[in-house]
Amino acid sequence: MSGNTLGKLFTVTSFGESHGPALGCVVDGCPPGLELCESDMQRDLDRRKPGQSRFTTQRREDDAINILSGVFEGKTTGTPIGLLIHNKDQRSKDYSKIKEQFRPAHADYTYWKKYGVRDYRGGGRSSARETAMRVAAGAIAKKYLKERYSVEVRGYLSQLGPIKIESIDFEQVDQNPFFSPDKSKVDEMEAFMTALNKEGNSIGAKIVVQASNVPAGLGEPVFDRLDADIAKALMSINAVKGVEIGAGFDAVAQKGTEHRDEITVDGFLSNNAGGILGGISSGQDIMASIALKPTSSIRIPGKSINTMGEPEEVVTTGRHDPCVGIRATPIAEAMLALVLMDHLLRVRGQIGGNFA
Amino acid sequence: MSGNTLGKLFTVTSFGESHGPALGCVVDGCPPGLELCESDMQRDLDRRKPGQSRFTTQRREDDAINILSGVFEGKTTGTPIGLLIHNKDQRSKDYSKIKEQFRPAHADYTYWKKYGVRDYRGGGRSSARETAMRVAAGAIAKKYLKERYSVEVRGYLSQLGPIKIESIDFEQVDQNPFFSPDKSKVDEMEAFMTALNKEGNSIGAKIVVQASNVPAGLGEPVFDRLDADIAKALMSINAVKGVEIGAGFDAVAQKGTEHRDEITVDGFLSNNAGGILGGISSGQDIMASIALKPTSSIRIPGKSINTMGEPEEVVTTGRHDPCVGIRATPIAEAMLALVLMDHLLRVRGQIGGNFA
Amino acid sequence: MSGNTLGKLFTVTSFGESHGPALGCVVDGCPPGLELCESDMQRDLDRRKPGQSRFTTQRREDDAINILSGVFEGKTTGTPIGLLIHNKDQRSKDYSKIKEQFRPAHADYTYWKKYGVRDYRGGGRSSARETAMRVAAGAIAKKYLKERYSVEVRGYLSQLGPIKIESIDFEQVDQNPFFSPDKSKVDEMEAFMTALNKEGNSIGAKIVVQASNVPAGLGEPVFDRLDADIAKALMSINAVKGVEIGAGFDAVAQKGTEHRDEITVDGFLSNNAGGILGGISSGQDIMASIALKPTSSIRIPGKSINTMGEPEEVVTTGRHDPCVGIRATPIAEAMLALVLMDHLLRVRGQIGGNFA
Amino acid sequence: MSGNTLGKLFTVTSFGESHGPALGCVVDGCPPGLELCESDMQRDLDRRKPGQSRFTTQRREDDAINILSGVFEGKTTGTPIGLLIHNKDQRSKDYSKIKEQFRPAHADYTYWKKYGVRDYRGGGRSSARETAMRVAAGAIAKKYLKERYSVEVRGYLSQLGPIKIESIDFEQVDQNPFFSPDKSKVDEMEAFMTALNKEGNSIGAKIVVQASNVPAGLGEPVFDRLDADIAKALMSINAVKGVEIGAGFDAVAQKGTEHRDEITVDGFLSNNAGGILGGISSGQDIMASIALKPTSSIRIPGKSINTMGEPEEVVTTGRHDPCVGIRATPIAEAMLALVLMDHLLRVRGQIGGNFA
Repeated sequence: MSGNTLGKLFTVTSFGESHGPALGCVVDGCPPGLELCESDMQRDLDRRKPGQSRFTTQRREDDAINILSGVFEGKTTGTPIGLLIHNKDQRSKDYSKIKEQFRPAHADYTYWKKYGVRDYRGGGRSSARETAMRVAAGAIAKKYLKERYSVEVRGYLSQLGPIKIESIDFEQVDQNPFFSPDKSKVDEMEAFMTALNKEGNSIGAKIVVQASNVPAGLGEPVFDRLDADIAKALMSINAVKGVEIGAGFDAVAQKGTEHRDEITVDGFLSNNAGGILGGISSGQDIMASIALKPTSSIRIPGKSINTMGEPEEVVTTGRHDPCVGIRATPIAEAMLALVLMDHLLRVRGQIGGNFA
Repeated sequence: MSGNTLGKLFTVTSFGESHGPALGCVVDGCPPGLELCESDMQRDLDRRKPGQSRFTTQRREDDAINILSGVFEGKTTGTPIGLLIHNKDQRSKDYSKIKEQFRPAHADYTYWKKYGVRDYRGGGRSSARETAMRVAAGAIAKKYLKERYSVEVRGYLSQLGPIKIESIDFEQVDQNPFFSPDKSKVDEMEAFMTALNKEGNSIGAKIVVQASNVPAGLGEPVFDRLDADIAKALMSINAVKGVEIGAGFDAVAQKGTEHRDEITVDGFLSNNAGGILGGISSGQDIMASIALKPTSSIRIPGKSINTMGEPEEVVTTGRHDPCVGIRATPIAEAMLALVLMDHLLRVRGQIGGNFA
Repeated sequence: MSGNTLGKLFTVTSFGESHGPALGCVVDGCPPGLELCESDMQRDLDRRKPGQSRFTTQRREDDAINILSGVFEGKTTGTPIGLLIHNKDQRSKDYSKIKEQFRPAHADYTYWKKYGVRDYRGGGRSSARETAMRVAAGAIAKKYLKERYSVEVRGYLSQLGPIKIESIDFEQVDQNPFFSPDKSKVDEMEAFMTALNKEGNSIGAKIVVQASNVPAGLGEPVFDRLDADIAKALMSINAVKGVEIGAGFDAVAQKGTEHRDEITVDGFLSNNAGGILGGISSGQDIMASIALKPTSSIRIPGKSINTMGEPEEVVTTGRHDPCVGIRATPIAEAMLALVLMDHLLRVRGQIGGNFA
Repeated sequence: MSGNTLGKLFTVTSFGESHGPALGCVVDGCPPGLELCESDMQRDLDRRKPGQSRFTTQRREDDAINILSGVFEGKTTGTPIGLLIHNKDQRSKDYSKIKEQFRPAHADYTYWKKYGVRDYRGGGRSSARETAMRVAAGAIAKKYLKERYSVEVRGYLSQLGPIKIESIDFEQVDQNPFFSPDKSKVDEMEAFMTALNKEGNSIGAKIVVQASNVPAGLGEPVFDRLDADIAKALMSINAVKGVEIGAGFDAVAQKGTEHRDEITVDGFLSNNAGGILGGISSGQDIMASIALKPTSSIRIPGKSINTMGEPEEVVTTGRHDPCVGIRATPIAEAMLALVLMDHLLRVRGQIGGNFA
């Protein structure tokens, strides 16, 4: 299959550009009998959608999701679920300039190099808007995982530029515009973002995403390890430049005695592994974190070239997220849920028995 | 396809356990007409193989590769290339103890939880020995990439536990047992490893892998991005806990002005992107780094349980790498080469023209 | 990937039920730069659509196709093409009876056995209406194949129940309601269908589909042979019970001297192979034929059971095709085009050079 | 994945040429805990192997299978099963002539057109010898299906050239060199083949393959229908030119009242569907038949060309099957078993519950 499909048994095939008529996806392989309606997806879509605070792009999208197939009388039928979001706030704009210049650090350049043509309106297919469908599909996975296996997938922002959180209270995550689990850092984050906006600059961020109650046994050696598939899914999110499982890069300086998670009759004594050993879930919480780069669309001029190869000074105006990481928490949750769902169906297929 | 196949057009399907009769793989989709013989793979296999210094496992493996198919009169025919390495140094051993206990931080536990059965001899399928076939397959990809597109894939150790390299000289990489590109750090590494061996402990490491002359245009939005597939391939290596592309986790604290790689008529002014924008190669060097955890098999006793759920104190004797990262450089190179090769064939398929 | 995706490089992922809000599909992997608009697909959709003669279902569908993505300024961009057809003529109806009974020879029974639930309105996902998206996607493949490689994909009805055509004139195919290439048989077909309608019965049919100017070299040994993939694609069409390539079942009684297609400097002397040798196209015309069963939805009562396992006498009223084969020609053409397109991209990927 | 892998969850990846050092395959996704040893596969391999009667090629192959991985202490572990058969009877021969000429109706021509190079020794990858690995892999599927679900996969020759069987007694199938279930036709077949050999010609054949006790619910709409995947698997066998499910091409002339399989509380009253409705198994016996062409390698001279495009008169001497259909029964059984196995794991994955 080509590059817009994720998963083997529970698959998501996505389409749509930011300024085309609609975004959509097809979720194939969903077990039948799951109660599902639009509002099951809308909650996470609303968490992701822009325009909810001063700190995200002011583009207004109502992101209303439509189920086109695969659900009958309120339940999934086992046939593919077609999902659609119509694009509405497509502010008409003069694209003549952006059409011919490449924004530094933007996919403009590589799409053009690859395809020889590109939909330059608002980023086209490379727009972060594409992630809405990931969130919608992920909400289906989350729901099934929770109802059938009590799996809980949750995430939070752990670092905003230089500001690191110091405590984790999941109750706080949806109470502030940053998905920060540390209430005490919210004022600092607001001040930082306000200054950044004034400056016309952007900033990176770090997100943690985890899953509890994941059955031991998910993931297939040797290539389709659970951690490998999680790494792929998370790295496929716009702007992600790094993925860690468990201790991640801290493992580099750890000794074996420090890193290994000892086991007692009451369970593991630590979780440096991030819930995955040999590519297979251990029953501990799955723990992953990701680094998101600062968005490339900023008001401060930068050197670039145009499609004719001539030098250009590029300034990006318009509505852009100064920190794409802020809205990334529900996206990362969705991607983790999609991978877990796929691997749950896969282990059920190969082994059946206890997993069914 | 199931979990032991990597790639879409250039695929590697691997099999074999560390103490079974043989390891093997099938490389399918290789272009016809490539000159190929065993020695083309043997060089990288020899770089990877253990027992070459005091600092890796003393298990002796000659790792002699056999081509079983797909090559005729010295050239690939376009049909699948069957590769085989016979296992030789299978020291007969009493496995009665290891059979029933789980080593902390080892795949013992999860294989048993998943499959209900496991080949406990020397790690079975979870053994690092499995990576030999990755290196063999990767050597074919490297050769084609180099001959046809001048792509150069290279790697090195950038950190051994607390010791970070400070300079990069690729000439040095194969001149010391650590794949260190910084000659000035080799003595310190040797001393560190000697002390570690005495202590019976193990240590993590960091590896950098890069590719030069990669054509712009490799990688498919949105899920099969080049960086996503690289992340998967690298994370699928035994012991890897983190993957970075370009600036990686440093991007978290970067501002947009700092992170963006400005473009001039003479090229990019920096490479925070690691050669990939929007999931597509930009023509800059592909840059990735990985964190490897310290091996779990150490002589210092650790708490664990056995298959009956009873507490056990586990001590791992026998021949193990105190730092699996030391031998990981050729493996990481191989994985990067496999992903690039697959995406080169993919872009050639979809777009043809300039890419063919 | 799950069961609603076809192809490896040029993929079609389909969704939608006959009485849901819409049918759709995602065409991924299309080369960029192909001129494409709705009318390119509408022509074949109109050929397939019902209600055009007395001999097909009277359900009125305008089958207006919408392009939702992947096309910009009239050309494909290389990103996924989202296609949608809204369902309109969903006659409200009392489904209380059909809901609990199984029509003999209908997918009712097996969907219910598999999923434990089914969308019983008008056949749901098993409706022939699903094939509209195949035709739309196939039209894209046809267009690319024709413009880029001069490949011509054409089909016709070769047998309607007992009536076999005796001559082939492609000009005639679209001039009668049966896709018959033999004008002299049309009156007989009309009379036959009129009598059949009166009787309340249905009838089988045979369709031939072929492709000219296909380059030699398409198809991959040993599993993904071109003929194997064509067989799968054609057998996946509703109601198809048999597939032949070239001489097909006539080959059973042929001797080697009779079957083999001798080669001269001017080309092959016959085409028993149907244009495929060893699973790879030879450059001759690809020739395939399919058998379509009579539709199961007829007015003559038949024995069946209901969901409680009780006996029922089933009579199907409503709007149904008395011969599903009549409208199958454009569908079979589409499926053949999709397979050829996928294999063209695949050979281009692996081999490049002359194929690009 | 490339063209030498079959299946999604239970996958077979094959390699090897007829005159290379070995043939092999990797069976990935096999459930753990299945008792398996070489002799489980050897029985079917022996049924397939040549040289057992005057009516098949006199090439002697002992076809001894070796398990290289995935089995420990007599049971499958869930990891990939590597299988290998060493080629032994590679009669050294002068290939200078065959090297440059194309046998009419042989894959010689298309391999050369596709790859620009080919292993001309004994057919290379296009040799029927490749099917040995299908039989070995199929034997694993058969064993699991039988032990776990009581599925029985069986086949027979139903027509040899002009000679059609008239009765079916499965006890007879392995009692004669033709896999004929009709003892009364064996003498006629012997006489026919003796005359054919004298003539230096070859003949086609028809094989029936069926599976009993297949659970209802296997197969996925709309592309990966069970019948579609069976059609692909069977058409991928060397020399197959047609595939029928149930009534097959007889359905063309059937009316709905005749074709539909009525259902009573005691089951179906007929099986025109061949056990599959809407692409999903119904619980009835799966019934398929295939047409095999006469082999192209015959002693009677035929017109052809060589690699320089010059005319040649081709005579094929050496050891060839005069009727490849004779040995095709175990191959067809294997292919059917592989498809059923894959779909059993798939339905178990998606739906679990009763299927597990």
